[in-house]
Amino acid sequence: MDEKKIILPERELPTHWYNLAADLPEPLQPPRHPATHAPLTPAELAPLFAEALIEQELSTERWIEIPTAVREAYRVWRPSPLFRATGLEAALETPAEIWCKWEGVSPAGSHKPNSAIPQAYYNAREGIRRLTTETGAGQWGSSLAYACAQFGLECTVYMVRISFSQKPYRASLMRAWGATVFPSPSDQTGSGRAALAEDPETNGSLGIAISEAVEDAVAHDDAHYALGSVLNHVLLHQTIIGLETQKQFKKLGVYPDVVIGCCGGGSNFAGLAFPFLADKFNGKEVRVIGVEPAACPTLTRAPFAYDSGDVAMMTPLLAMHSLGHTFVPPAIHAGGLRYHGMAPLVSHMLREKMIEALSLKQTECYEAALLFARTEGFIPAPETSHAIAATIREARRAKEEGKEKTIVMNWSGHGLMDLNGYRAFLEGKLVDADLPEDLLARSIASMEGLPKPPAL
Amino acid sequence: MDEKKIILPERELPTHWYNLAADLPEPLQPPRHPATHAPLTPAELAPLFAEALIEQELSTERWIEIPTAVREAYRVWRPSPLFRATGLEAALETPAEIWCKWEGVSPAGSHKPNSAIPQAYYNAREGIRRLTTETGAGQWGSSLAYACAQFGLECTVYMVRISFSQKPYRASLMRAWGATVFPSPSDQTGSGRAALAEDPETNGSLGIAISEAVEDAVAHDDAHYALGSVLNHVLLHQTIIGLETQKQFKKLGVYPDVVIGCCGGGSNFAGLAFPFLADKFNGKEVRVIGVEPAACPTLTRAPFAYDSGDVAMMTPLLAMHSLGHTFVPPAIHAGGLRYHGMAPLVSHMLREKMIEALSLKQTECYEAALLFARTEGFIPAPETSHAIAATIREARRAKEEGKEKTIVMNWSGHGLMDLNGYRAFLEGKLVDADLPEDLLARSIASMEGLPKPPAL
Repeated sequence: MDEKKIILPERELPTHWYNLAADLPEPLQPPRHPATHAPLTPAELAPLFAEALIEQELSTERWIEIPTAVREAYRVWRPSPLFRATGLEAALETPAEIWCKWEGVSPAGSHKPNSAIPQAYYNAREGIRRLTTETGAGQWGSSLAYACAQFGLECTVYMVRISFSQKPYRASLMRAWGATVFPSPSDQTGSGRAALAEDPETNGSLGIAISEAVEDAVAHDDAHYALGSVLNHVLLHQTIIGLETQKQFKKLGVYPDVVIGCCGGGSNFAGLAFPFLADKFNGKEVRVIGVEPAACPTLTRAPFAYDSGDVAMMTPLLAMHSLGHTFVPPAIHAGGLRYHGMAPLVSHMLREKMIEALSLKQTECYEAALLFARTEGFIPAPETSHAIAATIREARRAKEEGKEKTIVMNWSGHGLMDLNGYRAFLEGKLVDADLPEDLLARSIASMEGLPKPPAL
Repeated sequence: MDEKKIILPERELPTHWYNLAADLPEPLQPPRHPATHAPLTPAELAPLFAEALIEQELSTERWIEIPTAVREAYRVWRPSPLFRATGLEAALETPAEIWCKWEGVSPAGSHKPNSAIPQAYYNAREGIRRLTTETGAGQWGSSLAYACAQFGLECTVYMVRISFSQKPYRASLMRAWGATVFPSPSDQTGSGRAALAEDPETNGSLGIAISEAVEDAVAHDDAHYALGSVLNHVLLHQTIIGLETQKQFKKLGVYPDVVIGCCGGGSNFAGLAFPFLADKFNGKEVRVIGVEPAACPTLTRAPFAYDSGDVAMMTPLLAMHSLGHTFVPPAIHAGGLRYHGMAPLVSHMLREKMIEALSLKQTECYEAALLFARTEGFIPAPETSHAIAATIREARRAKEEGKEKTIVMNWSGHGLMDLNGYRAFLEGKLVDADLPEDLLARSIASMEGLPKPPAL
């Protein structure tokens, strides 16, 4: 019988990350200072990030070596399995082969530690004692807490207050790994205190939490800030996903026709997709599809513009598809896909028509996730459900067209700590939040006055 | 560098389970009818279990073939990794090698599907349409729900009411896999209605939930009952754990000196330990240690006696170490280790001095689990924490004695859905429940009047 899971031996763990910036036909637009709008210098990023990470952020080297200590830490769960969804294929009666790169085997249950580990490592190596970050749904905060524990760093997480209350287990998880977790807004920072003064009962927001984490890092010499998506160096670290997948397909002697990932800030999508885009730059035919929620349609409905990463505009301006930094998405369960911006590298690839984008409503996604859970056993993360729904669409199309094809999707995490959405779906209470044109227009208007990137 | 994880290719998945009953110097005492006390006939078990499972329950064949469809289903997560806890070793500065057989990679997050899958398979093959079961902490109910979805069976789970309220996510998980979940006592059965009539506000108990599940199965021709531990056939299915582990150690060219597992009903312990006991019967020197909570000290403080599996005495009488079927253990977080009885095969091995037993308080266990989580990354299940604490004791002893040795423990599940205990420990609120002598004596007295097994 064919193998259900392709697993690489540890000695075949990739030795280098792939840097897409080396292969761009047109270079990325530079990040700009939020106040002066001038291109940022590396020195301006130094209060926030380790030197090695700033280098990676700006690098155009194609291959960047993975430090031995990082590879050592990766081996706790990597190389991750490439899993064939034979049960799902049978249920769909599709001629397509469906392969899933299974990133939920990490201690934190998602792909996020792929970048948390090197971020913690480089900071520790450069003498930093503590990392700060924000978390919404909790996946990134957990991953950084875990990574910090591996390299003897302290970790401070500002967790959006409403998530902190609704997901007490997430905070327990971070604390089990030794992190300090504050509901945000907190009384630990000026921006937190200001937000509390304005509304002591506020639910908080990712925007405020980012401001708190950044302020905390800047205010302390021995602390840095860590971001879980969007930035080039984060996407770089995630390419380990696609590089392993390519090796796994090589063992099978096949090359996928379609590569699919869900898109929030872009890191899991890029992680799987970018190594395949490298082949596409070299003439390989492969379709690459990013899938986002209809409630937060960054790639499908937002302009390409310079925008800030947070509400308070403390972060650099990035040229990206953005719904506007004041955007508050309708409530959907895929908390990791509710960010207003899309990674500049992913945005750029859409502009260059190297990738396609698709937006889906959450009911279709939960239906897909449930079919996956019942046929393959594992409960996917609400975020991953978007990739599964798109995969099912492709597999059904293959059936209609009577075409064999190979689909690979990034199974970015498990949903064992995010079962609320499943519950709502099963009880018939899931709402397909819409995003009205006027709300979108108002939010996009918040970018007026910011510099405009040139047309291609 | 040495490998962190030993992973067998799927083609090396064992083809047979190992049946310890074939190698017993003294045979097991027969199960007896709860009313007549006469040895049970296979026919008396037929309303509850599939024929193939009854055969396995009574078999003394050494090797029992694993059906192809079961092996196919196992391949979703098996062979499971054998993981070297290098981080824990370093933290303990021990000369011991610590290996962990990682069963949390299954869709349900524990070893339980190893038996849920074949139980669902045999029942489906014999034309049964629905399985009933009880669940306390939720691990077994989840696993059976998952397994039933794989073989097109309906699944009815009676979940102890207090767990149902405190762990809504567990019920969502089972429902995601298509199971029907009733808080027990329910209005679905006579025993449930009787319990509700007596106390409409009752929290329920595992005893009542078992009675409901058994009653439901017996009342419906197309339904059978499924048990997640204790019985011979369940332990048989779990031996896949130890059989894989032996193959993995063979690749390393080492043989473990100490084998450790936590003990509730005995299934995960037996799963790892029994294949090593087979070698021990053949003269191999290996220590095998079962670890249980001090609050539920079945192996360390309870007599070997005939006792019932449930409060209402609807199940057969089994010869085993038992705290008495009226035993209500103090509240501890390791819900899976709170059963009053111990599998007859495990009990028998203790009588034969083939295994050692150790009881530990939960504070030591959570401390161990937290050290594990911070050094190795993964959050262990509260049940597994007992095996970890015992492993740490052995590793420290190795250091004191300056002896190299190889320890292997059954890392039976992850704790991502059971973080309450971690929370209590981190907040300094964990209580080391004691079991007073008089409470123990009263509970043991509930076995008076039942037949006595002969002395060895």
